[in-house]
Formats: sequence, C-alpha cells, structure tokens
Amino acid sequence: MCQNHGVAYIKPGVVEVQSIEYPKLALGDRKCEHGVILQIVSTNICGSDQHMVRGRTTAPAGLVLGHEITGLVIEAGRDVEFIKVGDLVSVPFNIACGRCRNCKVGQTGICLNVNPSRPGAAYGYVDMGGWVGGQAEYVLVPYADFNLLKFPDKDQAMAKIRDLTLLSDIFPTGYHGAVTAGVGPGSIVYVAGAGPVGLACAASCHLLGAAVVIVGDMIPERLEQAKSFGCEIVDLRKETPLSEQIAEIIGVPEVDCAVDCVGFEARGHGSDAGVERPATVLNAIMSITRAGGALGIPGLYVTGDPGAADDAAKEGSLSIRIGLGWAKSHSFYTGQCPVMKYHRQLMNAILYDKIQIAKAVNVEVISLDKAPKGYQDFDKGAAKKFVIDPHGMIPN
Amino acid sequence: MCQNHGVAYIKPGVVEVQSIEYPKLALGDRKCEHGVILQIVSTNICGSDQHMVRGRTTAPAGLVLGHEITGLVIEAGRDVEFIKVGDLVSVPFNIACGRCRNCKVGQTGICLNVNPSRPGAAYGYVDMGGWVGGQAEYVLVPYADFNLLKFPDKDQAMAKIRDLTLLSDIFPTGYHGAVTAGVGPGSIVYVAGAGPVGLACAASCHLLGAAVVIVGDMIPERLEQAKSFGCEIVDLRKETPLSEQIAEIIGVPEVDCAVDCVGFEARGHGSDAGVERPATVLNAIMSITRAGGALGIPGLYVTGDPGAADDAAKEGSLSIRIGLGWAKSHSFYTGQCPVMKYHRQLMNAILYDKIQIAKAVNVEVISLDKAPKGYQDFDKGAAKKFVIDPHGMIPN
Amino acid sequence: MCQNHGVAYIKPGVVEVQSIEYPKLALGDRKCEHGVILQIVSTNICGSDQHMVRGRTTAPAGLVLGHEITGLVIEAGRDVEFIKVGDLVSVPFNIACGRCRNCKVGQTGICLNVNPSRPGAAYGYVDMGGWVGGQAEYVLVPYADFNLLKFPDKDQAMAKIRDLTLLSDIFPTGYHGAVTAGVGPGSIVYVAGAGPVGLACAASCHLLGAAVVIVGDMIPERLEQAKSFGCEIVDLRKETPLSEQIAEIIGVPEVDCAVDCVGFEARGHGSDAGVERPATVLNAIMSITRAGGALGIPGLYVTGDPGAADDAAKEGSLSIRIGLGWAKSHSFYTGQCPVMKYHRQLMNAILYDKIQIAKAVNVEVISLDKAPKGYQDFDKGAAKKFVIDPHGMIPN
Amino acid sequence: MCQNHGVAYIKPGVVEVQSIEYPKLALGDRKCEHGVILQIVSTNICGSDQHMVRGRTTAPAGLVLGHEITGLVIEAGRDVEFIKVGDLVSVPFNIACGRCRNCKVGQTGICLNVNPSRPGAAYGYVDMGGWVGGQAEYVLVPYADFNLLKFPDKDQAMAKIRDLTLLSDIFPTGYHGAVTAGVGPGSIVYVAGAGPVGLACAASCHLLGAAVVIVGDMIPERLEQAKSFGCEIVDLRKETPLSEQIAEIIGVPEVDCAVDCVGFEARGHGSDAGVERPATVLNAIMSITRAGGALGIPGLYVTGDPGAADDAAKEGSLSIRIGLGWAKSHSFYTGQCPVMKYHRQLMNAILYDKIQIAKAVNVEVISLDKAPKGYQDFDKGAAKKFVIDPHGMIPN
Repeated sequence: MCQNHGVAYIKPGVVEVQSIEYPKLALGDRKCEHGVILQIVSTNICGSDQHMVRGRTTAPAGLVLGHEITGLVIEAGRDVEFIKVGDLVSVPFNIACGRCRNCKVGQTGICLNVNPSRPGAAYGYVDMGGWVGGQAEYVLVPYADFNLLKFPDKDQAMAKIRDLTLLSDIFPTGYHGAVTAGVGPGSIVYVAGAGPVGLACAASCHLLGAAVVIVGDMIPERLEQAKSFGCEIVDLRKETPLSEQIAEIIGVPEVDCAVDCVGFEARGHGSDAGVERPATVLNAIMSITRAGGALGIPGLYVTGDPGAADDAAKEGSLSIRIGLGWAKSHSFYTGQCPVMKYHRQLMNAILYDKIQIAKAVNVEVISLDKAPKGYQDFDKGAAKKFVIDPHGMIPN
Repeated sequence: MCQNHGVAYIKPGVVEVQSIEYPKLALGDRKCEHGVILQIVSTNICGSDQHMVRGRTTAPAGLVLGHEITGLVIEAGRDVEFIKVGDLVSVPFNIACGRCRNCKVGQTGICLNVNPSRPGAAYGYVDMGGWVGGQAEYVLVPYADFNLLKFPDKDQAMAKIRDLTLLSDIFPTGYHGAVTAGVGPGSIVYVAGAGPVGLACAASCHLLGAAVVIVGDMIPERLEQAKSFGCEIVDLRKETPLSEQIAEIIGVPEVDCAVDCVGFEARGHGSDAGVERPATVLNAIMSITRAGGALGIPGLYVTGDPGAADDAAKEGSLSIRIGLGWAKSHSFYTGQCPVMKYHRQLMNAILYDKIQIAKAVNVEVISLDKAPKGYQDFDKGAAKKFVIDPHGMIPN
Repeated sequence: MCQNHGVAYIKPGVVEVQSIEYPKLALGDRKCEHGVILQIVSTNICGSDQHMVRGRTTAPAGLVLGHEITGLVIEAGRDVEFIKVGDLVSVPFNIACGRCRNCKVGQTGICLNVNPSRPGAAYGYVDMGGWVGGQAEYVLVPYADFNLLKFPDKDQAMAKIRDLTLLSDIFPTGYHGAVTAGVGPGSIVYVAGAGPVGLACAASCHLLGAAVVIVGDMIPERLEQAKSFGCEIVDLRKETPLSEQIAEIIGVPEVDCAVDCVGFEARGHGSDAGVERPATVLNAIMSITRAGGALGIPGLYVTGDPGAADDAAKEGSLSIRIGLGWAKSHSFYTGQCPVMKYHRQLMNAILYDKIQIAKAVNVEVISLDKAPKGYQDFDKGAAKKFVIDPHGMIPN
Repeated sequence: MCQNHGVAYIKPGVVEVQSIEYPKLALGDRKCEHGVILQIVSTNICGSDQHMVRGRTTAPAGLVLGHEITGLVIEAGRDVEFIKVGDLVSVPFNIACGRCRNCKVGQTGICLNVNPSRPGAAYGYVDMGGWVGGQAEYVLVPYADFNLLKFPDKDQAMAKIRDLTLLSDIFPTGYHGAVTAGVGPGSIVYVAGAGPVGLACAASCHLLGAAVVIVGDMIPERLEQAKSFGCEIVDLRKETPLSEQIAEIIGVPEVDCAVDCVGFEARGHGSDAGVERPATVLNAIMSITRAGGALGIPGLYVTGDPGAADDAAKEGSLSIRIGLGWAKSHSFYTGQCPVMKYHRQLMNAILYDKIQIAKAVNVEVISLDKAPKGYQDFDKGAAKKFVIDPHGMIPN
C-alpha cells in the first residue's frame, strides 16, 4: 500500500505516469492531522489542466496533476472527527480550511489559510498552494471534516460513480456559471463553449428549469454532444453572426443571460476562427444578452499568461467592450466555483435521477496508464470527459 | 356580442349560470379607460371559490364567480397603449394598478389602489374589491397594459391552452409556494395537499429541480394523480405518523422544506380524519421540516371564518406550535401569490415543453352550462381541475 | 490558575457563586483538542438566563450559567491552528462545529454536531448540549478556530470592552431581528420590548439606516433608555391602542416592519397588563405591520413551558392570528441568531465608532460576587445590561 | 404661464438659456395623456451633462439639457389617476412606462417602451429617447402615476428642498453604487471619485452603516469636502500607490468593496495624472478590493466615444485587467441606477434627518440665468453641486 503512481507534467505537450511519493498527513513542514489519505476511486482530466500542459503557465516539470478526485478514506488524522475510514467521498477541487473569514461565508474558492501566495488553493495546480495532485493512486486531503462530501450509501454511489465523479469540479462549476447568470425556470440561456464545463453548464441549465439552452462552439462533435440532451446549438465557424443564429432559434437576437465556459484561450468566430482572441467570448456574450441580464464567467481568466499574443494579454489585460455591458446594465460574476456551495444538492440530483450528467459530458473511463493518451485526445477536441480509474474499481 | 352569461353564487352549495351584464370599461363610478374587455377563452374553477360556495364566507347571493381567466382582447380603453385588440392574454387573478408602492416592488397581491377596504383585489371574490368574476363569456380587466401577459403566438397558444389557462392562478400559486419554501435542485420537499394547487406545487418542485417531492393527502385519487408524474406519496388516512411515512421514503423523518397547499379548511390526520383541525397542516409541516428549513404557505388562512368550530378560529386565530418552529429556526411565508412575478417565465416553461402542467393537475374542459356540475364534482374531491370553455373555442 | 468560580442556578429565584471545576479540553468523554481555555474578561447576564432562573424550564440545580463570553486564550488544544494563546476573543453564544451541513451554510445556531438531543447548542443552558456556562473565571470553548472572533488589537479592544462584550449575543441577536425584518435605510420599524435585546435591536435599526424606530414596553425606565438614543416610544400600559400610538408618531397606524424582542413570556397590553399573554406580541406586530412587511422574531418561543397558564402553551402552542398575517402577506423569521454571520461586521462598527451599543443598552459592570444581585435587579426590570468582570480586568 | 426657458447645448463648451416651447402632453406624435406638466422647483446640473457639453457625445446643437427635476404638478393628463394637480414631486431621471417586462421587475433604467433606439430613456440627454430636458421652467413628465414620487407634506418638503432635489439622480445613483458593491454595517469601502456622485455615494455608505469610507480624487477641494462628513481620503496625485495609501489608513492594503463613481473620462493616477486613462479606475478598484468583493460601477461607460484617444476606446472597448478580477472572484455591477428602486426610502432618510445629503455634496442654489456659469465652474472641478431654481421658489 505504500507505493503510489501519478500523472506528472514534464514539458509542454508531455505528461507521464510516474512513481510518486505515498502521501503523508502533512504538506512539507505543515502538519495535517486534520487530513485523510484517500485511495482514489476516480479522478478526472480537466480543461484547466490543459492550460498547464500546453505550456501556458509557469508550472514546473514534475508537478503531479489532478484536482478532480473521488475516493475511499483509508487513513484519518487524529483530529478528524466526523469522516471515518471506509467512507466514500467526493473532494471539492478547492482546498479550504473551514476556519477563515472567507470559508465561514461559503467562499471556499478563496480560502485564506491554504496558500501562502494568494487566496485559494487546489490540488496539483501551479500557484495553488503546492498541494499534490490526485491523478494518482493515493492523495492527501486536508481539513477532511470540512472539505469532504460523504456519499450516504457506498453501493449506490459506486453504481453511479461516473456521475458522482463530476461533483469534484465540472458539474458544480458549470452549475455555478448558470446560477450566477441567473438561470431559472423559463430562462433562455446562451452557453459559450461545449467542452466538459460548457456541457455541464448546459445540463445544469436544464436542471434549473431553463426553457431554451443554446450552446455555441466550433467543434462539430461537441455540438452534437450538446444536441444529444436537448440543447439548441450555434456553430461558431459559420459566417452568420451569433445574434442571427440565435434569432433563427428563438425569434429574437437576444437571450436572457449567458455563461462563458471558455475563458482566456478563446478563439475568434467565423472568418476569424483559429486566431486567439482572448476577449471574444466576453464581448460576444455582452452583445447577445438582453439589457438587465447577468453574465456568469466560470471560464478561467489569468493574471499572467506568458504565452499570450500581446503585452497587455500577458498581464491578463483584455480589450473588453465594457461600454456595451454598461449600457445594458449587465452584471458580471467571475472566479472559481466554490464547490461546497453546491455539491450536496447536486449529489441528490444525481442520486435521485434528476440529471444524467455523465451522459451529458460523455464520460469515458480509462486506466491510469492511459492518462497521457487521454490528455492528447482531449487537447484535440474529443467530445469526451476522461475519468481515470487508477485501481480498476469502476464497474462497467 | 352584448349578451353575457356567468356563474353566480346563490346560496351554500348552489351556483347557477345566469344572464349577467355585459362588461363596461368601468367599475360602478370608477372609470377604467386603462382597461380592456375580454372574450373569455378559458376560465377555471378554483379551490378558493369553494370556500364561498360552501358558505364559509360572507359572499352575497348573486356574486359572479371566477378569477382564473384567459381571453381575447375585443375592446380596449383609450388609455391602453401596448395591449391591442386581438391579443390573446393571460389574466393574473390579482388585480393591480401598477402605480402604487406595492405594485412597484412586484407585490401585486397587495395593491393599494384596487380595493377600498384592504390591500389586494381579485375578480369575483368576496371582500376583494367588487370586481366582476370571469366564469363568464366576457369580463373587464382593468390596468390592462400592466396586468396582462400576451402570448407571443396565438396558434401556438391555442394548441397549449389547457396548460396556459393555469397561468392565471394555480400554476404560479403552487410555484410561489415552492419558491418561498426554498425549493431548488436537489431539494427534498413535502407538499401538503394534492388538490390542484398542491399538484401544481409538486410539478413546480420538479421544474425547480427538486430531488424528491412527497405529496400528502387523504383522497386516493388525488394521490394517484400525484404519483402519475413522479411524486412520492403519503396517505394521511393511515395511522402511521407522517414522519414515519416520510422516513420510509427517504430514510430520515425530515424533509428540507415544505409547502402548505391546504389552508384553514384542513382536517385531522389518521384517526382524527374528517374533523376540522385548521392548524393541523401548519403544525405538521413544522414537525417534519428540518431545522433551518422554510415553509411556503400559499394555502389560504382567513381573517374571519363565520363557519369555524370555535371562537378563536372564527377570528382566524389558530393554535400553532410556534415554539417548535422557533426551535428549528423556521421561516414562514404567507399570502396570495403575486402572479405577475412568475407568469412570464412559467409561460416559457410551458411553451418550450419543460412542464406538462395540465396533465399534472388533470385538466378537464367543460362548457359553461356544466359549471355547476363541475363545482359539485370538485367539492367531492375529484382529482381534476375543471376548465370552463364558455365559447367552445378550446380544441380537443 | 487551577481554581474556578461560577454562577450556578440553585432553585427558582436563586443563583449562587460557587467553586466549580477548572475547565479541561473535553466535555465528559468527548475530547476537545479543537478547543481552547479562556480566562474570562467579561460575561453578561442575559434575559434568556432569566427563563431558567424563574423556574420556567427544566434546568437542573447546579447548572453553571452564562453564554455571553469574552476572554483571553490561555491554553489551546493541539488541533487549534489559527487562534493563539494570548488572543483576546469574542465567543458566539452558539456552539458550532464548523463541519456539518448547517455550519457550512452559516446556520451556526442549529449545528448538528454539538448537542445529541437537537440541533444547536450554547454554553450554560438547559437542553443545549451540556456545555459548561461562562459566568465564571475560566471556560472551555470548543472548535476554537471556527467559533472565535479575534480582536485585531488588544489595547484598543480593552478600551472598548463594554461594547465588544455585547458581540457574543445581544448585539447580533437584536441586529438579526432587524435584518430579518428587512430593516434598511428609510425603514419605519416597531421594536417590541425595551429589554437589552430590544434596545440592541433598536440601536441596530439606527445603524442600518432606519428613518424611525419606535420601541414599545411597559417599564418607564426602559422606555427612557430607548429615548436616550433617538428612538420614539410607545407605552404599552396605556389604554390607547398600539396602532393609535403609532399613528400619533408617524401619521399612519402601520409601520414597514417589526421585531419581536419579547418572546413567550409576553404580557397583555393596556388594561390586560400583567397577565401572561404569550401570543400578544406576535398578534400585535401583525396588526401594526403593513401588508408585505416582514416580522423578525428573535424573542424566544419554547417547545415546552411547564409553567405556562394552559395546556396548549405548555407545549408551546399559542393562539396566533395567522389569518391576519396571511391577508397581509407577512413573512416570519424565527430562531436563535447565528452570531457568526454578523459579529465581524458589528465589531468593525464598534471599533470605528459607528455605534455606541454599550450606552444604548446601559451596560453596568459588576464583579462576579455581585452576580446574584445583578440577576435580581434585572428580573425587577432594571434598564441595565449587567456585565460581570470576574478578574477585575475591565478599566473604569 | 405659456412661456418657457431652458438651458440648451450650443457647441462644445457652450450652453445658453433660451426661450423654448412650453410643454404639451405629447412627445411629437406620441400622445402622453399619462403625463403631467410640472412647474420646476429645482433642477440640478449633473456630471453626465458635462460629457455632452464637453463635446464627447453626438448631442445636437439646441438640445435642452437637464434630467434632475423636482416640481409642482400644474396640469395632468386624463389617464393620470393618483397624482394630482398641486402635488410636489420628485422625478426619477430614468423615464419608464411601468408596463413593460423590465419596469415590472423594477429595472426602470432599461424600460423598453420609452426609447425607440435602445432600452432606457432620460430627459434632455443624447440618444435617450428625445424627451425634453428639465433645466427649464416647465417640463413634461410622462407616465406620471408610475414615475413620480410625491412628497407627503409640501411645507416640510420645501424646507428640505436642497436635500430632496438630489433624489432625482445623484443620491440614488451613489447609493446604488454602494448597494451593488455590497456595502453594509461594518464595511470598509473605497469610493473612486469625489464629484457629486462620489460624495453622494460616500454619504450613502455612511447611511448604510459602513465602518470606514475612503474617497479618492485628484482635486483637493473635493477631498476636503469628503473629509467634512467623516470620510478618509486618498490623494491620487501623490506618487504613493493607492494600495499603500489605503494601508496607511486601515492597516491593510485592501478594502472590502469599492465603487467607481468616475467612469470613462478617468485620468491616470500619480505621475500619470492628467492623461486620459479610461480603464484606470476599473483596474485600480480590482487591485485594492479583497478577494470575494463586489464592485459597484455607477460611473458611466459609453458604447461610443468619438473623442477618445484610440480606436478601441472610440467603441467603448477598454483594456481591463479581467484576469485579476477573476483571480479574486470579483463581481461587477454596471449600468444606470433605477432610481425608483430607492427614492422612497431615501426620501424618508432625508425627511427624518438620517442624512445631510445636500451638505455632503455641497449644494449651491443658482438662478436659471446663472446656469451657464454653473456649468463652467463645475467643469473646472468646483466641489459643489449646482441646483437651478428657475422660479425663485427655494427659500434661503
């Protein structure tokens, strides 16, 4: 049990499965008696991992990746009181202490005590506090009583593990985008991006009662995937402007609200396709959202992007048509999803069959040694969400 | 076109279809150039009409009933600017001026300008301002620009008229109960009462993403109806306490939140069945809602009930176990649903097939002359919602 | 340092200062390595202590009282990470684990892990989990990282300790009543009760920007106290009905919202004065609050009251005019204040001189041995808030 | 009574008092029987008028200015039912119909029925629907029952008219900035800009209970004005970075939330002072607001700015450091203040002496013929709010 293997970032475009240290109840000198060791049952490859793997960040070689983790508790620190060895749990990707000012009001995405360099931390991510990633066999989860969501019944949970594994990040993240955009019964929504977060957002919009969910992307397979669970689609490779494509669907060129599930690696639409245009999505969603609407922005925007096309973008400054948003009294909601705010309710939605989230994002289970292949396929735009099964525990 | 017929209250237990006055753009001396005359396309019998017909109010003989109205605009006052002759519209049962302090903040259920004796008014209801009811062929709707919801496409609307007719009251009312109780994705809810409002509430809970919707009633047909669209049920005639029946369904004896869709004519549960126990539902929902939960109370409680069993109840005072609610930090939301707050979104939910509300409440269309029979059947507990079609316009 | 003295309940009407056990990092068999031992700097007598001392509860003889605690950390368990020995801290009267479902959403008043018999716990209170009270020299505070609010500067804090001591209960409690009633800039509010919570509520209404704050009571000294910081007053001993007294002040007989700072030991108004009428305040605030208003109910209502006048009240069932509230679309907010939701902001309001809360509630500092006298005076209706200074640390 | 004079825009830098048409109950061909004619009692010069007068918009010569209006009703259209001749009223600068989807939810700043070219209208403003301005003797106010706020007592109101005149725009606008930024009791806030809106915002922050209000500007007189009512100040001409100046005041370099009361005509700070830097304020407030904070943006950003320094800015596109805001989970609230949402409560705050808003913004009353001089002085940065008194009705 004292061996461990994980997916490490090596250099731009390359990840490898390596032998890594078996976790201790500590992060360097910092003791974590409030933590547990998990045997990982499932751990997903995320779009935000790709930013590192593409070399768009300062991630060091050897960084063990993975922040979407579900597992079995196999060891608990002496200060863990309510989580027990044997529990099957979902791990929010945000690491949070449960004791600071921000955690106390539910803003676990910007915890003040888990990252010396800035508010907020995550597993296996550059500048996010140095916590070891969980695309591995075993991982440390600190502040376990606070962070972990225990599934009420292990057998039931294993039967739905393809869905429940999405509770650690993309289901709540997509849902958060929808909630902050104000989606509710009867809403007409535009979701920018049909990657896993975009698809999870679209499925969340349906769960929230939206009347029409329109998804835009440039990859046909992803648009097909969106269509498969009842979304309308917009093909952004077309020359027809977005507003006209929307009008063809709902009769008017404006939606009630919109969600940006793309972020700073956005590319131009139509004839501009392929060129990196980091503010394209933000400007597009302002243009097609009605006055008074809200914009959810779970897509990542960074403070520094060494690979950006111009100096301003390298600092995270983008040319945003704020005057348009202002004229429409838009509000804008940015930042990491605080997973804990939502995961319990969304677990219920899965357990009681209110949503088929694994089907919506097209989960494909792979073994740990297939992770590098998963990264490659995902980077090419596969309309799939890769879930790594490091111990071969996931039933067919 | 200048004839009119409507359903009038005669005496306890008796209603009649009578020839009534054709509406004018006025209420007595009060001019209503802001109003329109509607040719009524559909008008529903409501549970709250039954309070009057059972003689539980001071309604005078001859009162023309009906506050759930959908119709075609056939005449518009000179000050009506945006609603046009020919529009097909839904009428919120709350009459509201759109110009007072309460209307300006969306509290159209307590408009200050439409009822000299208290805030709030309705069509065809005792103490509600004297506006003529709409279980008729034609009716006046005042402040038409403000009150009316226009359906975007008449043909599409007529094809879904059985659903859209429910926008005037019970769909928003049931939905309001769910919203005020805090129902959202993943919620586990108890809905007291499986009459039309209870069923509309249960369907609304599903629309809002609830994980489990448990409906309680004493009439088997109504419980069957609830079951037909995915609700769990509790039979209140049984001796098994409510909390135990709930525990059998979800494993614990408490729900997240609850909605009272019964009101003051509640009867005892179990061995106490049949006896009028006006506070039974309120006390029951406190007992089975978890600490921190909210209670939506769209069910009607009255300020005066001449037919009540004791003096306190005659004044609307009930023996409520407030200490229990307090210990659980419950919050309580009472009052008429402000229909306008919800009807546009719910119309979208109908038009885009997100909900089958007519099926949920089991709409049965009847002709105007069958209205007295409808009242009788409904009073006996028929698991149906009767929709009157005064001009034979509703397609099969 | 291993001696300790505290105020114990002996029998109805009698409390005594006794030698009590010096606290350990444990509650019986339950280890509390997450806790700290405080040297108590100030600890206040609360109106809810009086319910026990009057014999209106099942509190056992010997129970050590006190849940309003401010102190210095003198020992910290090994799981305490952010609170340090030497910190000067405010203790919320709600004991909360910071790890359960309710704590995670800020509902620390109904924590699920600190009281085996029901949600929610407190120090030194019957049925509240058995935690030892803090009208003493030393006390255990569990889950210290989560529960405690550290004052940023000890000297500054000691200079304002008369104000800061109120952060443990009555200032947030009164504020919670105001917030749940919807008080904001321009509000016209009625506060029922001019005891310390009522006065704290009235001062909070001013802090929140209320235009007019009307306080009602039957004790002239308390009304004078309310007047001293800009409140309008209503003397409930008068025969003039409450609504008329209100109309004399603001020109109309209705306020925007109201707060019940009295609870179940209410007495009749006017000619009915002196007689216990447990629902009087609830019914009164419904009658004088405008349609659409909200009612904050921080005043305590109990599930069992052995000393009540009738059988229903013994179970906490009161005759409430719910029909009136319903007709006015009132909403009702009950329960313990979750202190943590507010104490940081209110601390800032004190430290930056936005409120003179000690003056508003008329703090009087007494030594520990004067506590029994404080209880007596308070029970007689003294317009004072007694603050015990067990170590003689509070400067004049 | 059939003469009228008003302030007209002539060319960049020049306004003139001219004889203008006496208003009719119409706007061109559009009948306004829902409107009233006001004799104007007070009408204020606004910072947003300056954008036009400086030639930064496409305002045509001859446009009659003025959207901050208070007046006496001297004639009422036949559809006006509740406002009466003789009423003294405040006019929200937003013109709103009270009958469209947006008005019904309180978004009167983006009414759909009062401006053919886009949502939202105002008096005397370019691209805002063509309604005649109110820096004049008489003006038409459409939809009077909906738009107007009647003062309860004329004598009382005239005695406080210097304060009440600010209800038409800047008091609610500044307050809206504070509310959307989440200001409440105990908040530590930064307000960018000490012009009249900034000062009104700062005073609103105090009304809302803020603990510390820090105001930044580059004009010493305006900073003095902010200091005069208890604000802390930051002089942006200094080389010391904003965050350091803030740390000197509160001990840390970050505030809880911030409000941009400057808008697109912002200039650089420190050594960059004087140069137009349209995104400076937005970027500055992101940098000094703590993670999780909200940013209120009542300062105007435009969709087209012909006088801008570069092509992007001419279209309203600014280089915004969105990555920084995203990393801090900021939310952003833009757009015109919907005055009606706030004016009643703020009127109460004035009438009951909770705020001295005229003093805070330093009101100076001038006659109509002094308006051109007022524009000039204001443009030079006078720390004053000019209120025009066209009929000499304002008492000294």
